[in-house]
Amino acid sequence: MVLSHTTHPGNIGAAARAMKTMGLRNLYLINPRHFPDPQADAMAAGASDILGNAVVCGSIDEALQGVAFTVAMTARLRDISIEVKTPREAMPLLLQQAAQQPAALLFGTEMSGLTNEEMGKAQVLVNIPADPNFSSLNLAAAVQVMAYELSVATQSYAPSIREILLAPHEQLEGLYAHLEKTLLEIGFFTTQNPARLMQRLRRLYARARLEPEEINLLRGILSVTTEYNARLKSRYLKEHPDVQQH
Amino acid sequence: MVLSHTTHPGNIGAAARAMKTMGLRNLYLINPRHFPDPQADAMAAGASDILGNAVVCGSIDEALQGVAFTVAMTARLRDISIEVKTPREAMPLLLQQAAQQPAALLFGTEMSGLTNEEMGKAQVLVNIPADPNFSSLNLAAAVQVMAYELSVATQSYAPSIREILLAPHEQLEGLYAHLEKTLLEIGFFTTQNPARLMQRLRRLYARARLEPEEINLLRGILSVTTEYNARLKSRYLKEHPDVQQH
Repeated sequence: MVLSHTTHPGNIGAAARAMKTMGLRNLYLINPRHFPDPQADAMAAGASDILGNAVVCGSIDEALQGVAFTVAMTARLRDISIEVKTPREAMPLLLQQAAQQPAALLFGTEMSGLTNEEMGKAQVLVNIPADPNFSSLNLAAAVQVMAYELSVATQSYAPSIREILLAPHEQLEGLYAHLEKTLLEIGFFTTQNPARLMQRLRRLYARARLEPEEINLLRGILSVTTEYNARLKSRYLKEHPDVQQH
Repeated sequence: MVLSHTTHPGNIGAAARAMKTMGLRNLYLINPRHFPDPQADAMAAGASDILGNAVVCGSIDEALQGVAFTVAMTARLRDISIEVKTPREAMPLLLQQAAQQPAALLFGTEMSGLTNEEMGKAQVLVNIPADPNFSSLNLAAAVQVMAYELSVATQSYAPSIREILLAPHEQLEGLYAHLEKTLLEIGFFTTQNPARLMQRLRRLYARARLEPEEINLLRGILSVTTEYNARLKSRYLKEHPDVQQH
Protein backbone atom coordinates (compact mmCIF):
# COMPACT_ATOMS: atom_id res chain seq x y z
CA MET A 1 0.00 0.00 0.00
CA VAL A 2 1.41 3.36 -1.02
CA LEU A 3 -0.14 6.56 0.38
CA SER A 4 0.96 9.75 -1.36
CA HIS A 5 1.17 13.07 0.51
CA THR A 6 -1.34 12.14 3.22
CA THR A 7 -2.46 15.23 5.15
CA HIS A 8 -4.00 13.79 8.34
CA PRO A 9 -1.88 11.32 10.37
CA GLY A 10 -5.05 9.78 11.80
CA ASN A 11 -5.84 8.51 8.32
CA ILE A 12 -2.44 6.82 8.11
CA GLY A 13 -3.16 5.00 11.37
CA ALA A 14 -6.67 4.00 10.31
CA ALA A 15 -5.28 2.80 6.96
CA ALA A 16 -2.72 0.65 8.80
CA ARG A 17 -5.49 -0.90 10.88
CA ALA A 18 -7.58 -1.55 7.76
CA MET A 19 -4.59 -3.21 6.09
CA LYS A 20 -3.83 -5.44 9.04
CA THR A 21 -7.41 -6.74 9.33
CA MET A 22 -7.02 -8.05 5.77
CA GLY A 23 -3.55 -9.52 6.26
CA LEU A 24 -1.60 -6.78 4.45
CA ARG A 25 1.72 -5.68 5.91
CA ASN A 26 3.80 -3.33 3.75
CA LEU A 27 3.00 0.38 3.99
CA TYR A 28 4.87 3.05 2.00
CA LEU A 29 4.32 6.76 2.67
CA ILE A 30 5.33 9.41 0.13
CA ASN A 31 6.02 12.72 1.89
CA PRO A 32 3.33 12.45 4.61
CA ARG A 33 2.63 15.84 6.24
CA HIS A 34 2.96 14.45 9.80
CA PHE A 35 4.60 11.08 10.49
CA PRO A 36 5.26 9.53 12.93
CA ASP A 37 2.47 11.15 14.93
CA PRO A 38 0.44 10.29 18.09
CA GLN A 39 -2.82 10.53 16.11
CA ALA A 40 -1.57 7.88 13.69
CA ASP A 41 -0.72 5.61 16.64
CA ALA A 42 -4.14 6.16 18.23
CA MET A 43 -6.06 5.30 15.06
CA ALA A 44 -3.89 2.27 14.28
CA ALA A 45 -5.14 0.56 17.47
CA GLY A 46 -3.45 -2.88 17.36
CA ALA A 47 -1.70 -2.21 14.06
CA SER A 48 1.21 -0.14 15.40
CA ASP A 49 3.65 -2.74 14.02
CA ILE A 50 2.60 -1.72 10.50
CA LEU A 51 3.31 1.93 11.30
CA GLY A 52 6.64 0.97 12.85
CA ASN A 53 7.68 -0.83 9.66
CA ALA A 54 6.28 1.82 7.29
CA VAL A 55 8.78 3.12 4.72
CA VAL A 56 8.78 6.90 4.26
CA CYS A 57 9.82 7.92 0.72
CA GLY A 58 10.73 11.27 -0.83
CA SER A 59 9.19 10.59 -4.25
CA ILE A 60 6.82 8.27 -6.06
CA ASP A 61 9.68 6.80 -8.08
CA GLU A 62 11.43 5.87 -4.84
CA ALA A 63 8.27 4.22 -3.51
CA LEU A 64 7.67 2.27 -6.73
CA GLN A 65 11.31 1.18 -7.22
CA GLY A 66 11.22 -2.49 -8.28
CA VAL A 67 7.42 -2.56 -8.54
CA ALA A 68 6.14 -4.22 -11.72
CA PHE A 69 2.40 -3.61 -11.41
CA THR A 70 0.77 -0.52 -9.91
CA VAL A 71 -2.96 0.03 -9.39
CA ALA A 72 -3.84 3.70 -8.82
CA MET A 73 -7.06 4.94 -7.22
CA THR A 74 -9.15 7.64 -8.85
CA ALA A 75 -12.30 9.24 -7.46
CA ARG A 76 -13.44 10.57 -10.80
CA LEU A 77 -13.96 9.02 -14.21
CA ARG A 78 -11.96 11.74 -15.95
CA ASP A 79 -10.79 11.29 -19.49
CA ILE A 80 -13.08 9.06 -21.54
CA SER A 81 -10.09 7.50 -23.26
CA ILE A 82 -8.73 6.06 -19.99
CA GLU A 83 -9.87 2.63 -18.97
CA VAL A 84 -10.99 2.60 -15.32
CA LYS A 85 -11.67 -0.72 -13.66
CA THR A 86 -13.78 -1.59 -10.63
CA PRO A 87 -12.07 -2.99 -7.49
CA ARG A 88 -13.62 -6.37 -8.23
CA GLU A 89 -12.16 -6.43 -11.74
CA ALA A 90 -8.73 -5.12 -10.75
CA MET A 91 -7.86 -7.05 -7.60
CA PRO A 92 -7.56 -10.47 -9.27
CA LEU A 93 -5.14 -8.87 -11.78
CA LEU A 94 -3.10 -7.36 -8.96
CA LEU A 95 -3.00 -10.68 -7.18
CA GLN A 96 -1.83 -12.52 -10.31
CA GLN A 97 1.08 -10.09 -10.69
CA ALA A 98 1.90 -9.98 -6.98
CA ALA A 99 2.47 -13.73 -7.03
CA GLN A 100 5.65 -13.13 -9.03
CA GLN A 101 6.80 -9.53 -8.65
CA PRO A 102 6.19 -6.62 -6.27
CA ALA A 103 2.86 -4.89 -6.88
CA ALA A 104 1.47 -1.66 -5.43
CA LEU A 105 -1.88 -0.06 -4.62
CA LEU A 106 -1.49 3.72 -4.85
CA PHE A 107 -3.70 6.24 -2.97
CA GLY A 108 -3.62 10.03 -3.34
CA THR A 109 -4.28 12.86 -0.92
CA GLU A 110 -7.50 13.31 1.05
CA MET A 111 -8.50 16.46 -0.80
CA SER A 112 -7.53 15.93 -4.41
CA GLY A 113 -6.41 12.32 -4.86
CA LEU A 114 -3.53 11.49 -7.19
CA THR A 115 -2.04 13.90 -9.71
CA ASN A 116 -2.14 13.06 -13.42
CA GLU A 117 1.61 12.53 -13.25
CA GLU A 118 1.21 9.99 -10.42
CA MET A 119 -1.59 8.18 -12.26
CA GLY A 120 0.60 8.05 -15.34
CA LYS A 121 2.92 5.68 -13.49
CA ALA A 122 0.22 3.05 -12.92
CA GLN A 123 -0.75 0.11 -15.11
CA VAL A 124 -4.42 0.16 -14.05
CA LEU A 125 -6.77 2.84 -12.67
CA VAL A 126 -9.48 1.84 -10.22
CA ASN A 127 -12.58 3.73 -9.13
CA ILE A 128 -14.67 2.61 -6.16
CA PRO A 129 -18.22 3.05 -7.45
CA ALA A 130 -19.96 5.60 -5.23
CA ASP A 131 -22.99 7.88 -5.16
CA PRO A 132 -22.26 10.55 -7.80
CA ASN A 133 -23.69 13.18 -5.44
CA PHE A 134 -21.35 12.25 -2.60
CA SER A 135 -18.44 10.18 -3.79
CA SER A 136 -15.77 11.21 -1.27
CA LEU A 137 -14.80 8.07 0.61
CA ASN A 138 -12.54 8.69 3.57
CA LEU A 139 -8.96 7.62 2.70
CA ALA A 140 -8.88 4.83 5.30
CA ALA A 141 -12.35 3.68 4.20
CA ALA A 142 -11.05 3.38 0.63
CA VAL A 143 -8.03 1.44 1.88
CA GLN A 144 -10.41 -0.85 3.80
CA VAL A 145 -12.56 -1.51 0.73
CA MET A 146 -9.56 -2.27 -1.48
CA ALA A 147 -7.86 -4.45 1.15
CA TYR A 148 -11.15 -6.30 1.61
CA GLU A 149 -11.54 -6.87 -2.14
CA LEU A 150 -7.95 -8.06 -2.35
CA SER A 151 -8.55 -10.44 0.52
CA VAL A 152 -11.72 -11.84 -1.07
CA ALA A 153 -9.86 -12.23 -4.37
CA THR A 154 -7.11 -14.16 -2.54
CA GLN A 155 -9.63 -16.72 -1.40
CA SER A 156 -10.55 -17.58 -4.98
CA TYR A 157 -7.08 -17.17 -6.45
CA ALA A 158 -5.79 -19.69 -8.94
CA PRO A 159 -2.40 -19.13 -10.59
CA SER A 160 -2.66 -18.56 -14.33
CA ILE A 161 -1.12 -21.03 -16.74
CA ARG A 162 1.29 -18.65 -18.39
CA GLU A 163 3.12 -16.33 -16.01
CA ILE A 164 4.67 -13.25 -17.58
CA LEU A 165 7.46 -11.24 -15.96
CA LEU A 166 6.80 -7.54 -16.38
CA ALA A 167 9.32 -4.74 -16.69
CA PRO A 168 9.79 -2.93 -13.36
CA HIS A 169 8.83 0.71 -12.80
CA GLU A 170 12.29 2.16 -13.46
CA GLN A 171 12.61 0.43 -16.86
CA LEU A 172 9.22 1.81 -17.91
CA GLU A 173 10.25 5.32 -16.83
CA GLY A 174 13.43 4.86 -18.89
CA LEU A 175 11.33 4.04 -21.95
CA TYR A 176 9.04 7.06 -21.43
CA ALA A 177 12.02 9.41 -21.08
CA HIS A 178 13.64 7.98 -24.23
CA LEU A 179 10.36 8.23 -26.14
CA GLU A 180 9.81 11.85 -25.13
CA LYS A 181 13.37 12.80 -26.06
CA THR A 182 13.01 11.15 -29.46
CA LEU A 183 9.65 12.74 -30.22
CA LEU A 184 11.12 16.12 -29.32
CA GLU A 185 14.10 15.52 -31.57
CA ILE A 186 12.11 14.48 -34.62
CA GLY A 187 9.86 17.51 -34.18
CA PHE A 188 6.68 15.67 -33.26
CA PHE A 189 5.79 18.07 -30.48
CA THR A 190 5.78 21.21 -32.62
CA THR A 191 2.04 21.11 -33.25
CA GLN A 192 1.03 19.00 -30.24
CA ASN A 193 0.88 19.36 -26.46
CA PRO A 194 3.84 17.30 -25.17
CA ALA A 195 2.48 16.71 -21.64
CA ARG A 196 -0.90 15.53 -22.85
CA LEU A 197 0.60 13.35 -25.55
CA MET A 198 3.01 11.70 -23.11
CA GLN A 199 0.07 11.01 -20.77
CA ARG A 200 -1.75 9.29 -23.61
CA LEU A 201 1.30 7.27 -24.61
CA ARG A 202 1.83 6.23 -20.98
CA ARG A 203 -1.75 4.95 -20.78
CA LEU A 204 -1.36 3.05 -24.02
CA TYR A 205 1.85 1.28 -22.96
CA ALA A 206 0.58 0.77 -19.41
CA ARG A 207 -2.26 -1.28 -20.81
CA ALA A 208 0.19 -3.37 -22.82
CA ARG A 209 2.01 -4.39 -19.57
CA LEU A 210 5.41 -4.44 -21.24
CA GLU A 211 8.00 -7.13 -20.66
CA PRO A 212 11.71 -6.22 -20.29
CA GLU A 213 12.53 -7.54 -23.79
CA GLU A 214 9.77 -5.44 -25.30
CA ILE A 215 11.19 -2.35 -23.59
CA ASN A 216 14.52 -3.16 -25.25
CA LEU A 217 12.80 -3.63 -28.61
CA LEU A 218 10.97 -0.29 -28.40
CA ARG A 219 14.08 1.55 -27.22
CA GLY A 220 16.03 -0.07 -30.04
CA ILE A 221 13.57 1.44 -32.51
CA LEU A 222 13.91 4.84 -30.85
CA SER A 223 17.71 4.63 -30.97
CA VAL A 224 17.78 3.77 -34.67
CA THR A 225 15.36 6.61 -35.38
CA THR A 226 17.63 9.22 -33.89
CA GLU A 227 20.86 7.63 -35.11
CA TYR A 228 19.56 7.62 -38.64
CA ASN A 229 18.47 11.22 -38.36
CA ALA A 230 21.74 12.20 -36.75
CA ARG A 231 23.75 10.55 -39.55
CA LEU A 232 21.81 12.38 -42.24
CA LYS A 233 22.00 15.64 -40.37
CA SER A 234 25.70 15.53 -39.64
CA ARG A 235 26.51 14.56 -43.21
CA TYR A 236 24.41 17.46 -44.43
CA LEU A 237 25.95 19.96 -42.04
CA LYS A 238 29.46 18.75 -42.80
CA GLU A 239 28.97 19.50 -46.45
CA HIS A 240 27.14 22.77 -45.76
CA PRO A 241 29.29 24.59 -43.19
CA ASP A 242 27.31 27.76 -43.97
CA VAL A 243 23.98 26.26 -42.72
CA GLN A 244 22.81 27.57 -39.33
CA GLN A 245 22.25 24.90 -36.66
CA HIS A 246 19.24 25.43 -34.45
CA MET B 1 -28.31 0.95 9.08
CA VAL B 2 -28.77 0.28 12.78
CA LEU B 3 -25.88 0.94 15.20
CA SER B 4 -26.38 -0.49 18.68
CA HIS B 5 -24.86 1.16 21.79
CA THR B 6 -22.08 2.92 19.92
CA THR B 7 -19.40 4.22 22.32
CA HIS B 8 -17.47 6.77 20.21
CA PRO B 9 -19.50 9.50 18.48
CA GLY B 10 -16.71 9.87 15.87
CA ASN B 11 -17.60 6.39 14.65
CA ILE B 12 -21.23 7.41 14.18
CA GLY B 13 -20.13 10.33 12.02
CA ALA B 14 -17.71 8.20 10.00
CA ALA B 15 -20.42 5.56 9.54
CA ALA B 16 -22.80 8.25 8.23
CA ARG B 17 -20.18 9.35 5.72
CA ALA B 18 -19.57 5.74 4.64
CA MET B 19 -23.32 5.23 4.15
CA LYS B 20 -23.77 8.36 2.11
CA THR B 21 -20.92 7.50 -0.30
CA MET B 22 -22.87 4.36 -1.18
CA GLY B 23 -26.25 6.06 -1.47
CA LEU B 24 -27.68 4.86 1.87
CA ARG B 25 -29.77 7.33 3.89
CA ASN B 26 -31.54 5.89 6.92
CA LEU B 27 -29.55 5.66 10.15
CA TYR B 28 -30.97 4.29 13.42
CA LEU B 29 -29.03 4.59 16.69
CA ILE B 30 -29.87 2.39 19.69
CA ASN B 31 -28.82 4.13 22.92
CA PRO B 32 -25.65 5.82 21.63
CA ARG B 33 -23.39 6.96 24.47
CA HIS B 34 -22.94 10.48 23.02
CA PHE B 35 -25.26 11.83 20.35
CA PRO B 36 -25.56 14.42 18.94
CA ASP B 37 -21.88 15.28 19.36
CA PRO B 38 -19.34 17.61 17.67
CA GLN B 39 -17.02 14.62 16.99
CA ALA B 40 -19.82 12.90 15.07
CA ASP B 41 -20.34 16.07 13.01
CA ALA B 42 -16.61 16.40 12.30
CA MET B 43 -16.25 12.80 11.08
CA ALA B 44 -19.43 12.96 8.99
CA ALA B 45 -17.83 15.59 6.73
CA GLY B 46 -20.48 16.24 4.06
CA ALA B 47 -22.93 13.68 5.50
CA SER B 48 -24.36 15.83 8.30
CA ASP B 49 -27.83 15.47 6.74
CA ILE B 50 -27.74 11.77 7.60
CA LEU B 51 -26.89 12.58 11.23
CA GLY B 52 -29.63 15.21 11.31
CA ASN B 53 -32.20 12.67 10.16
CA ALA B 54 -30.89 9.84 12.37
CA VAL B 55 -33.53 8.19 14.59
CA VAL B 56 -32.41 7.59 18.18
CA CYS B 57 -34.16 4.55 19.73
CA GLY B 58 -34.37 3.24 23.30
CA SER B 59 -34.33 -0.44 22.34
CA ILE B 60 -33.55 -2.82 19.48
CA ASP B 61 -37.23 -3.68 19.13
CA GLU B 62 -38.05 -0.02 18.64
CA ALA B 63 -35.34 0.25 15.99
CA LEU B 64 -36.49 -2.84 14.11
CA GLN B 65 -40.22 -1.95 14.25
CA GLY B 66 -41.69 -2.78 10.82
CA VAL B 67 -38.46 -4.36 9.56
CA ALA B 68 -38.98 -7.67 7.74
CA PHE B 69 -35.40 -8.77 7.18
CA THR B 70 -32.42 -8.07 9.46
CA VAL B 71 -28.80 -8.89 8.74
CA ALA B 72 -26.63 -8.80 11.89
CA MET B 73 -22.86 -8.44 11.92
CA THR B 74 -20.64 -10.76 13.91
CA ALA B 75 -16.87 -10.59 14.29
CA ARG B 76 -16.66 -14.17 15.50
CA LEU B 77 -18.06 -17.40 14.12
CA ARG B 78 -19.90 -18.34 17.35
CA ASP B 79 -21.80 -21.48 18.09
CA ILE B 80 -25.20 -20.22 17.08
CA SER B 81 -27.74 -22.17 15.11
CA ILE B 82 -28.06 -19.36 12.56
CA GLU B 83 -25.98 -19.69 9.43
CA VAL B 84 -23.14 -17.16 9.04
CA LYS B 85 -22.79 -15.79 5.52
CA THR B 86 -20.17 -13.65 3.80
CA PRO B 87 -21.10 -10.07 2.81
CA ARG B 88 -21.07 -11.12 -0.83
CA GLU B 89 -23.56 -13.89 -0.16
CA ALA B 90 -25.84 -11.87 2.09
CA MET B 91 -26.19 -8.51 0.34
CA PRO B 92 -28.12 -9.80 -2.70
CA LEU B 93 -30.55 -11.43 -0.24
CA LEU B 94 -30.94 -8.19 1.69
CA LEU B 95 -31.51 -6.31 -1.54
CA GLN B 96 -34.17 -8.74 -2.70
CA GLN B 97 -36.05 -8.30 0.58
CA ALA B 98 -35.59 -4.54 0.70
CA ALA B 99 -37.32 -4.24 -2.67
CA GLN B 100 -40.55 -5.24 -0.95
CA GLN B 101 -40.29 -4.48 2.78
CA PRO B 102 -38.01 -2.57 5.15
CA ALA B 103 -34.71 -4.36 5.81
CA ALA B 104 -31.93 -3.60 8.32
CA LEU B 105 -28.20 -4.04 8.71
CA LEU B 106 -27.37 -4.29 12.42
CA PHE B 107 -23.97 -3.40 13.96
CA GLY B 108 -22.91 -3.91 17.60
CA THR B 109 -20.60 -1.96 19.90
CA GLU B 110 -16.95 -1.23 19.14
CA MET B 111 -15.66 -3.47 21.94
CA SER B 112 -17.91 -6.54 21.99
CA GLY B 113 -20.21 -6.41 18.99
CA LEU B 114 -23.82 -7.57 19.27
CA THR B 115 -25.18 -9.54 22.20
CA ASN B 116 -26.59 -13.00 21.62
CA GLU B 117 -30.03 -11.56 22.27
CA GLU B 118 -29.57 -8.92 19.56
CA MET B 119 -28.25 -11.48 17.08
CA GLY B 120 -31.26 -13.65 17.82
CA LYS B 121 -33.48 -11.00 16.23
CA ALA B 122 -31.75 -11.28 12.86
CA GLN B 123 -32.62 -13.50 9.90
CA VAL B 124 -29.03 -13.75 8.72
CA LEU B 125 -25.63 -13.34 10.38
CA VAL B 126 -22.73 -11.92 8.40
CA ASN B 127 -19.02 -12.10 9.12
CA ILE B 128 -16.53 -9.96 7.19
CA PRO B 129 -13.65 -12.39 6.51
CA ALA B 130 -10.52 -11.00 8.19
CA ASP B 131 -7.08 -12.04 9.35
CA PRO B 132 -7.73 -14.40 12.29
CA ASN B 133 -4.83 -12.79 14.17
CA PHE B 134 -6.27 -9.28 13.84
CA SER B 135 -9.94 -9.35 12.94
CA SER B 136 -11.11 -6.13 14.60
CA LEU B 137 -12.37 -3.88 11.84
CA ASN B 138 -13.19 -0.37 12.96
CA LEU B 139 -16.98 0.08 13.19
CA ALA B 140 -17.12 2.68 10.41
CA ALA B 141 -14.79 0.53 8.28
CA ALA B 142 -17.23 -2.39 8.65
CA VAL B 143 -20.13 -0.10 7.72
CA GLN B 144 -18.13 1.02 4.65
CA VAL B 145 -17.47 -2.57 3.53
CA MET B 146 -21.12 -3.60 3.95
CA ALA B 147 -22.46 -0.45 2.27
CA TYR B 148 -20.01 -1.02 -0.57
CA GLU B 149 -21.10 -4.66 -0.99
CA LEU B 150 -24.74 -3.58 -0.96
CA SER B 151 -24.03 -0.93 -3.56
CA VAL B 152 -22.15 -3.40 -5.81
CA ALA B 153 -25.04 -5.86 -5.47
CA THR B 154 -27.42 -3.09 -6.54
CA GLN B 155 -25.36 -2.28 -9.61
CA SER B 156 -25.20 -5.88 -10.75
CA TYR B 157 -28.85 -5.60 -11.72
CA ALA B 158 -27.93 -2.92 -14.26
CA PRO B 159 -25.68 -3.33 -17.31
CA SER B 160 -21.97 -3.14 -16.44
CA ILE B 161 -19.91 -0.01 -17.04
CA ARG B 162 -19.63 1.38 -20.53
CA GLU B 163 -17.42 -0.58 -22.88
CA ILE B 164 -14.60 1.24 -24.62
CA LEU B 165 -14.77 1.21 -28.41
CA LEU B 166 -11.71 -0.48 -29.87
CA ALA B 167 -10.13 0.16 -33.23
CA PRO B 168 -11.42 -2.27 -35.89
CA HIS B 169 -9.20 -4.84 -37.60
CA GLU B 170 -8.50 -2.76 -40.70
CA GLN B 171 -7.24 0.22 -38.67
CA LEU B 172 -4.90 -2.05 -36.73
CA GLU B 173 -3.58 -3.55 -39.96
CA GLY B 174 -3.06 -0.04 -41.28
CA LEU B 175 -0.94 0.75 -38.25
CA TYR B 176 1.14 -2.41 -38.61
CA ALA B 177 1.79 -1.74 -42.31
CA HIS B 178 2.77 1.86 -41.57
CA LEU B 179 5.02 0.73 -38.72
CA GLU B 180 6.78 -1.88 -40.86
CA LYS B 181 7.33 0.59 -43.69
CA THR B 182 8.79 3.15 -41.31
CA LEU B 183 11.08 0.66 -39.60
CA LEU B 184 12.35 -0.43 -43.01
CA GLU B 185 12.97 3.18 -44.02
CA ILE B 186 14.91 4.14 -40.91
CA GLY B 187 17.05 1.04 -41.28
CA PHE B 188 15.83 -0.81 -38.21
CA PHE B 189 15.57 -4.14 -39.99
CA THR B 190 19.14 -4.29 -41.23
CA THR B 191 20.35 -6.24 -38.23
CA GLN B 192 17.02 -7.77 -37.19
CA ASN B 193 14.56 -10.31 -38.56
CA PRO B 194 11.60 -8.22 -39.86
CA ALA B 195 8.95 -10.98 -39.69
CA ARG B 196 9.79 -11.93 -36.13
CA LEU B 197 10.01 -8.33 -34.97
CA MET B 198 6.64 -7.47 -36.48
CA GLN B 199 5.11 -10.47 -34.74
CA ARG B 200 6.40 -9.21 -31.42
CA LEU B 201 5.15 -5.68 -32.06
CA ARG B 202 1.74 -7.03 -33.06
CA ARG B 203 1.53 -9.00 -29.84
CA LEU B 204 2.49 -5.94 -27.82
CA TYR B 205 -0.11 -3.65 -29.41
CA ALA B 206 -2.75 -6.37 -29.39
CA ARG B 207 -2.48 -6.52 -25.63
CA ALA B 208 -2.94 -2.75 -25.44
CA ARG B 209 -6.33 -3.08 -27.17
CA LEU B 210 -5.89 0.18 -29.06
CA GLU B 211 -8.63 2.72 -29.59
CA PRO B 212 -9.06 4.55 -32.94
CA GLU B 213 -7.62 7.81 -31.56
CA GLU B 214 -4.55 5.99 -30.31
CA ILE B 215 -4.00 4.49 -33.76
CA ASN B 216 -4.06 8.04 -35.15
CA LEU B 217 -1.59 9.16 -32.50
CA LEU B 218 0.87 6.34 -33.24
CA ARG B 219 0.56 6.82 -37.01
CA GLY B 220 1.12 10.53 -36.51
CA ILE B 221 4.44 9.76 -34.86
CA LEU B 222 5.39 7.44 -37.74
CA SER B 223 4.49 10.10 -40.32
CA VAL B 224 6.60 12.76 -38.65
CA THR B 225 9.51 10.34 -38.47
CA THR B 226 9.48 9.65 -42.20
CA GLU B 227 8.70 13.23 -43.24
CA TYR B 228 11.64 14.45 -41.23
CA ASN B 229 13.90 11.88 -42.86
CA ALA B 230 12.49 12.58 -46.32
CA ARG B 231 13.12 16.32 -45.98
CA LEU B 232 16.74 15.80 -45.05
CA LYS B 233 17.24 13.21 -47.77
CA SER B 234 15.68 15.17 -50.61
CA ARG B 235 17.61 18.28 -49.67
CA TYR B 236 20.81 16.25 -49.69
CA LEU B 237 20.06 14.60 -53.03
CA LYS B 238 19.06 17.88 -54.63
CA GLU B 239 22.40 19.41 -53.81
CA HIS B 240 24.27 16.22 -54.75
CA PRO B 241 22.88 15.24 -58.17
CA ASP B 242 25.83 12.92 -58.59
CA VAL B 243 24.78 10.69 -55.65
CA GLN B 244 23.17 7.38 -56.67
CA GLN B 245 19.67 6.80 -55.38
CA HIS B 246 18.94 3.27 -54.25
